[in-house]
Amino acid sequence: MNIALAQFNPIVGDLTGNAHRTVRWIERAREKGADLVVFPELSVVGYSPHDLLDNVHFMDAVEVAIRYIHAHVPPDMGVLVGAPIRNPNPVGKKLLNAALLLERDVPARTTAKMLLPTYDVYDEYRYFEPAERQEVMEFRGMRLGVHICEDMWNLEEYATYHMYERDPVAELVAQGVDVLINLSASPWAHDRHVVRTGIIESLCHRHNVPFVMVNQVGANTELIFDGDSSVFGADGQLLACAPSFEESLLLWNTDHTVACERPPRERIEDLHDALVLGIREYVDKTGAFDEVLIGLSGGIDSAVTAALAVEALGPERVTGITMPSVHSSEGSINDSESLAQNLGIAFHELAIEDIVDSFEKTLTPLFEGTPFGIAEENIQARSRGVLLMAVANKYSRMVLTTGNKSELAMGYATLYGDMSGGLAVLADVFKMDVYALARFINDRAGTVRIPVSSIEKPPSAELRPDQKDEDSLPPYPLLDDILQRYIEERQDEEVIAQATGQSVSFVRGILDAVDRNEYKRKQAPPGLRVSVKGFGSGRRMPIVARVNRKDIERMMHELQEDSTA
Amino acid sequence: MNIALAQFNPIVGDLTGNAHRTVRWIERAREKGADLVVFPELSVVGYSPHDLLDNVHFMDAVEVAIRYIHAHVPPDMGVLVGAPIRNPNPVGKKLLNAALLLERDVPARTTAKMLLPTYDVYDEYRYFEPAERQEVMEFRGMRLGVHICEDMWNLEEYATYHMYERDPVAELVAQGVDVLINLSASPWAHDRHVVRTGIIESLCHRHNVPFVMVNQVGANTELIFDGDSSVFGADGQLLACAPSFEESLLLWNTDHTVACERPPRERIEDLHDALVLGIREYVDKTGAFDEVLIGLSGGIDSAVTAALAVEALGPERVTGITMPSVHSSEGSINDSESLAQNLGIAFHELAIEDIVDSFEKTLTPLFEGTPFGIAEENIQARSRGVLLMAVANKYSRMVLTTGNKSELAMGYATLYGDMSGGLAVLADVFKMDVYALARFINDRAGTVRIPVSSIEKPPSAELRPDQKDEDSLPPYPLLDDILQRYIEERQDEEVIAQATGQSVSFVRGILDAVDRNEYKRKQAPPGLRVSVKGFGSGRRMPIVARVNRKDIERMMHELQEDSTA
Repeated sequence: MNIALAQFNPIVGDLTGNAHRTVRWIERAREKGADLVVFPELSVVGYSPHDLLDNVHFMDAVEVAIRYIHAHVPPDMGVLVGAPIRNPNPVGKKLLNAALLLERDVPARTTAKMLLPTYDVYDEYRYFEPAERQEVMEFRGMRLGVHICEDMWNLEEYATYHMYERDPVAELVAQGVDVLINLSASPWAHDRHVVRTGIIESLCHRHNVPFVMVNQVGANTELIFDGDSSVFGADGQLLACAPSFEESLLLWNTDHTVACERPPRERIEDLHDALVLGIREYVDKTGAFDEVLIGLSGGIDSAVTAALAVEALGPERVTGITMPSVHSSEGSINDSESLAQNLGIAFHELAIEDIVDSFEKTLTPLFEGTPFGIAEENIQARSRGVLLMAVANKYSRMVLTTGNKSELAMGYATLYGDMSGGLAVLADVFKMDVYALARFINDRAGTVRIPVSSIEKPPSAELRPDQKDEDSLPPYPLLDDILQRYIEERQDEEVIAQATGQSVSFVRGILDAVDRNEYKRKQAPPGLRVSVKGFGSGRRMPIVARVNRKDIERMMHELQEDSTA
Repeated sequence: MNIALAQFNPIVGDLTGNAHRTVRWIERAREKGADLVVFPELSVVGYSPHDLLDNVHFMDAVEVAIRYIHAHVPPDMGVLVGAPIRNPNPVGKKLLNAALLLERDVPARTTAKMLLPTYDVYDEYRYFEPAERQEVMEFRGMRLGVHICEDMWNLEEYATYHMYERDPVAELVAQGVDVLINLSASPWAHDRHVVRTGIIESLCHRHNVPFVMVNQVGANTELIFDGDSSVFGADGQLLACAPSFEESLLLWNTDHTVACERPPRERIEDLHDALVLGIREYVDKTGAFDEVLIGLSGGIDSAVTAALAVEALGPERVTGITMPSVHSSEGSINDSESLAQNLGIAFHELAIEDIVDSFEKTLTPLFEGTPFGIAEENIQARSRGVLLMAVANKYSRMVLTTGNKSELAMGYATLYGDMSGGLAVLADVFKMDVYALARFINDRAGTVRIPVSSIEKPPSAELRPDQKDEDSLPPYPLLDDILQRYIEERQDEEVIAQATGQSVSFVRGILDAVDRNEYKRKQAPPGLRVSVKGFGSGRRMPIVARVNRKDIERMMHELQEDSTA
């Protein structure tokens, strides 16, 4: 039997668009000789539709879209699509996260997801009731073990948030299956490929059954999907794999058991391609603006953001604006200009001096006699924000913000200033990775795209004379290490202090800064998620909160003294 | 037996502060002669701690806080507190949402929540495993049916999101109970009191058992808790109730069965008190700023926001700033000034004309020859945002934003302009309710606090000559009705069109505007939630999304034609 893996890129909520494209893909798969085409999880609606699912009208429309696809299945084929369906049981959540096997003139057969991720960016139990049982689907004499995404993720060694009671894959295998088929919408993050592959290999070894995994590709808001769809033999060997970060229709004949190798990919290459895809998809799928605008400071963050945007959209859709102040170095303006030249993008210079002066003059009655401080620094950043947004509003463009994860973590950014824009490209990229991206971009181009001095000069916000990031922040290699341990690995101060050779009070200062700046990140634009824990919808911290590490220590001592007294 | 209902106001995450205050309240309850004190759901950590629960360190600290409280329970008393505890079962979510019965020199007895709300603002299945069973707690010969919040909300007529399989209250009653005790953290919204009371009365009638409900009071970020703690007799009659929107320690003797009446409260009075509490709590609990700053436009929204802030914080902690432009009417400036005088708050005027000029001059090379439009309107709103934030930064104050729910729904607000600030006071209040609040404030004061002309003049953003809201928006009574049906009741266009007597295409235009402006609300500051569906964490809409109501209609027709062909 020929199985086509449809590494498909749906738009969230775009039921008619997704349905029309699904039908075209089915046609293409038929031309290639496929007997069965497999689409990703929730392929009809895109992952994730979030609260669109709460609208009765939306679910009515989903049913229309499914009927439309079903009506267009050729007589000689089977099609597996992913879609939310209504829970026939009046008790429990109103929907099921289902896979539907569609064949001409036969009622759809359905199976539903049993393990519903409800952690990090996932909210599935908000909408879906878990399936009570798994049943094998027979198709052309083959027993298909169809299951959905998380259903394969219940191996003890991977259960970071939740170890599940049920094992849907084992339940399917127990009924006898010829092939396991997983419909996924599994977003990309560093190391995800390795983890995903490890799980599938373990499952093949454990159950001695071939495994087909079809993953969504593309990006929807903050989530980037790499695809990575692949087929593994019963012995856990890779038999076929789709390219990463692009749509692909991959055909596998179930008799084909010759192992192949996935072309090796580097960590920074993956990160680069993920961000490029994320930018392109966000701009194109929101559809409100064709072009983007970036404030160029001469620093590394805006340079990398601009270079990525050019790769995503082409130079003709990117404009850079430098907005020097009295504190800007000559180098910064030159670096911005050379960057724009290297990238071939439109470039403007708008000095903010007069604007800052007029703010300061207007504020004189209230500010007279006070020293230069945060208020004055922010006026500069915010004047730039207003200018960028004005140009964006005037010429229908989207502003891309350029702050990185290290800065956002520490609150080293100005709300309504450099945080103004539609998409935060580097919001989940630590500063040291921004450097790595810059070098990667230049290396791959074989020429200087990011000016060398943007890479080599000490980072500075240039909001006061001779300011350097390291006046306010620890050196980035150390800072990034501490932040990564705290935010992504949830280590606490003692563990981090020990691992990094720093004092507990030094580490505590950094963790407190991260906690304290939750309110800024609350108002940040959506950021592209590339780690297992970004600052977007996967991190839900209370804004009103007091975390008192020191007081708890004191309370513990008090208790110990009482009990020994 | 004397049961004390501790209508307690915890701060999220403040484990030592909450523990110290819990111990003081236990002491007070003992002085009043209580045998048992009941605190609300998650009283040790505040509702909701969100992802603080993911930090191992935090859960260690929770255990210290519980031990501290336990060590301070007097010998002759029982104390019921709410806290997250670790799930002893290695399978499933890592935590349980528990009630702990603490007695001197006796190990804590625990029971856990069975029904975990995972919809709207609630994310409980993100952290907690549901209890497998409910067990009655014996205390001084009384059989207590202790359960937690949602555990009582499984009556069919109230199950908007989810009808549950289990009925924890019935399971407790089946074991024989003398009194049902519910620990709640149930946030306030319009009509919540009526619904809550209705459920409890039904449960009393069904099971013929008295019912004690203890609810959190205060506010944490967007959620406002009214308390509303009360005791109902086995016949469903109200026997005792705590005042709304303030802390209270209420004593009830289980032999006392004389019915009482809750003082009647009006809808707008509740809304007013909820907002006042919400402002005070947000400012005091974040603790970063003592004072607030409000941009006064002369319009009704900023006037009501300022009046509420004065009631929350006192006039000495509120400053109003009016920032007229060339488009501001003389009346607006006068109205702002009289408002400030009526409220007794500090008042400044900062004209934005020079700033707007300097922006326009700087932008001349890019804007020359283009007509006045959105870009120029937004420059005005954003110049005001920068000014307000500058004063806030200089004098350590928090800006309160003033936009209402109707505007936010339609995107009739400027990002980084009037949306700049720490708390959106009216974000969940429709425009017609803002008017009602203004009248209520003046009526209750018995004097004019909100200037009559702010209430009576047609609303205007004053960003271009002779602009009126009704040039861009339908009349507010109609708009609010449509928005409320769409956002809160999830009605769709046909239903709304029929109910409001408008055309489907007119209604569709409004719903599309709501959908289209999700990206603005994504970057709004936290707003006080006062309805069953606010724009905060309870509404999770994709930013990248296409909702194509018209195309679906076309697809449906196509399918119908095919099937009849």
